Amino acid sequence: MTNDHHHDCCGGDHHHGHAHSHHPAEGRADLDGPAGSPILIEVTRGGMVESVHRGRAAVVDARGGILAQWGDVRAPVYARSSVKPLQAIPLVETGAADAFAVSTEELALACASHNGEERHTQVAGRWLARMGLSPADLECGAQIPYDVETGNALLLRGEAPSTLHNNCSGKHTGFLATALHKGEPTKGYVRYDHPVQQRILGVTEQMTGQDLSRAPWGIDGCSIPTIGIPLEAVAYAMARIADPRDLPERRAQAVTRIREAWTAHPYLIAGRDTFDTAIMEAAGGAVLVKQGAEGFGVAVLPRLGLGVALKIDDGAARARDIAMGALIRSLRAVDDALWTTAPGLLATPITSRAGAEVGTVRAALAWPPAAA
Amino acid sequence: MTNDHHHDCCGGDHHHGHAHSHHPAEGRADLDGPAGSPILIEVTRGGMVESVHRGRAAVVDARGGILAQWGDVRAPVYARSSVKPLQAIPLVETGAADAFAVSTEELALACASHNGEERHTQVAGRWLARMGLSPADLECGAQIPYDVETGNALLLRGEAPSTLHNNCSGKHTGFLATALHKGEPTKGYVRYDHPVQQRILGVTEQMTGQDLSRAPWGIDGCSIPTIGIPLEAVAYAMARIADPRDLPERRAQAVTRIREAWTAHPYLIAGRDTFDTAIMEAAGGAVLVKQGAEGFGVAVLPRLGLGVALKIDDGAARARDIAMGALIRSLRAVDDALWTTAPGLLATPITSRAGAEVGTVRAALAWPPAAA
Repeated sequence: MTNDHHHDCCGGDHHHGHAHSHHPAEGRADLDGPAGSPILIEVTRGGMVESVHRGRAAVVDARGGILAQWGDVRAPVYARSSVKPLQAIPLVETGAADAFAVSTEELALACASHNGEERHTQVAGRWLARMGLSPADLECGAQIPYDVETGNALLLRGEAPSTLHNNCSGKHTGFLATALHKGEPTKGYVRYDHPVQQRILGVTEQMTGQDLSRAPWGIDGCSIPTIGIPLEAVAYAMARIADPRDLPERRAQAVTRIREAWTAHPYLIAGRDTFDTAIMEAAGGAVLVKQGAEGFGVAVLPRLGLGVALKIDDGAARARDIAMGALIRSLRAVDDALWTTAPGLLATPITSRAGAEVGTVRAALAWPPAAA
Repeated sequence: MTNDHHHDCCGGDHHHGHAHSHHPAEGRADLDGPAGSPILIEVTRGGMVESVHRGRAAVVDARGGILAQWGDVRAPVYARSSVKPLQAIPLVETGAADAFAVSTEELALACASHNGEERHTQVAGRWLARMGLSPADLECGAQIPYDVETGNALLLRGEAPSTLHNNCSGKHTGFLATALHKGEPTKGYVRYDHPVQQRILGVTEQMTGQDLSRAPWGIDGCSIPTIGIPLEAVAYAMARIADPRDLPERRAQAVTRIREAWTAHPYLIAGRDTFDTAIMEAAGGAVLVKQGAEGFGVAVLPRLGLGVALKIDDGAARARDIAMGALIRSLRAVDDALWTTAPGLLATPITSRAGAEVGTVRAALAWPPAAA
């Protein structure tokens, strides 16, 4: 599949072998001049574009070939929650998922940035309880649910949000499952040097084809390390989820199981009124997406064997979602009819407080991208 | 004052007479190359800059001389709520403020984007009642208060937010006062062709030195027109508030009265936990600021006779506030001790959900700016 599909829709420089190179950026000039990434999103109001969002993106195949790119795709980026599906690989590979009879729903939640709705927190809570653990064992911190209705309901009941409402509670439950199964301490599982995080680092290196031992890193919102990885390498890892045939067999099996859980439960991955859940429910398996904080997003396109990674330079979520919709449309990864039935995936109306539509957030990225 | 102060802190191209030119942009090249505005703000996390915010800014004196500029300051921008102090001028000049015995607090609230706290809504509510009007006469739409605690209190009392909680309720009450005083219909006062808005358009043209009759415009969040104005011209208008001596006498008096109200009531202008209120309370009259939506902001520096306008290209509020703090510090508009006692005006910590400090939003703008 890797080499026998042809995208006449894809421009750009089809060079192979770079995305999984162990060499850092070779000083290649930014495609868009020294001053920045291209404009991917425009925010209009009446007769004018009011704001713009610049960003970088790469479309990569499972051999590391870059099929399209916007801006500098070599510089390291924090993929944040977009790499949760990679971080779930050890949960499967260590045997922890089988040992604790982890369900498809639970595996999906391990890949989720969920809304904190009851449908989400109940899955995490039951999974923890089955392992003899409690929300107090989660080291992600408490979070007011992303879902406003759920947050308001908590407030009206006089309840404080808990670690279960943290959008990462499923991922952290998966971390605890792995630590328990391996006989490692559960306390401190978020630390860079804990075996849980070191195992993830190794998996991430293999999937991205990068030596990350000296990569810049920081602490994510949920307290675990987030690693600086070239954007093209994140897209490459996603392509290998789309098309795992060149992976070692055990890894290919783990990746396939994760991809199937991700596909089967789009609501658990995010939730009500989210771009990720909406596009995955509409696309019926043709596309998997996973948003991360600070404007990061990825897509896995199983039918095309491609991975996509996207970083909005300024970190805006409103731009990330619409840019991802536009990229997926440009790649013809889903049936064109989807865009007619779900126009909100390609543009977000801006309304006045009185409810009138006064502007829009819309895609402005060039397709095909400017050649390198 | 205009010509007898010297800023050895200010770089850039000191050309005079442009900001109040009636000519649109003359095709001058963007200072920072075709790809965009300079980076004004960096968002760091651990060992890396994770996101950046680009923007444009101008520092202008009351003769229209540009003392410093970043990026393209000629292109039209929507100044949004930053021009509320200009929009309050007719309230004073028509005699409406005197006829309705408008207090200094009420005049400040007419310039505000307030938090919807009781301190704010009570001022608007009493002012409306005194004119025989009610919140139903405000055409700004209802808004959940910016202040989270106030919003939660409403929810717990089972009350819906009203038009009084709209951050613009003071400004709209001022519009109604002017319409009533002039015998104009109060219904429809938000429309572009209503005398209230046409009067504001004329005042804005005079204060900015622009012919705005064919300027692009859109509808603001509170339903009134927002006009596309060159950024440097917005800064020029603010400089004329700082130093109104060259204005016609009646306008100078109105502007001075507005500036004094703005100075006297920093809490009414914004509210709890806001950059605008915090810096104005700390600066004790040395600086006035007014944020607008989509990353716009202005400052009036009365002691220096300068105006500042700032647009974050991507519309981010987090970047606007920190960039404004950095600009005000670079201009030495306030005592240096302020920055030690209020470091939050120059950088915002980013924390994990568990409460650890994991990054920062910090200024990255060059000072002095690159020469044109």
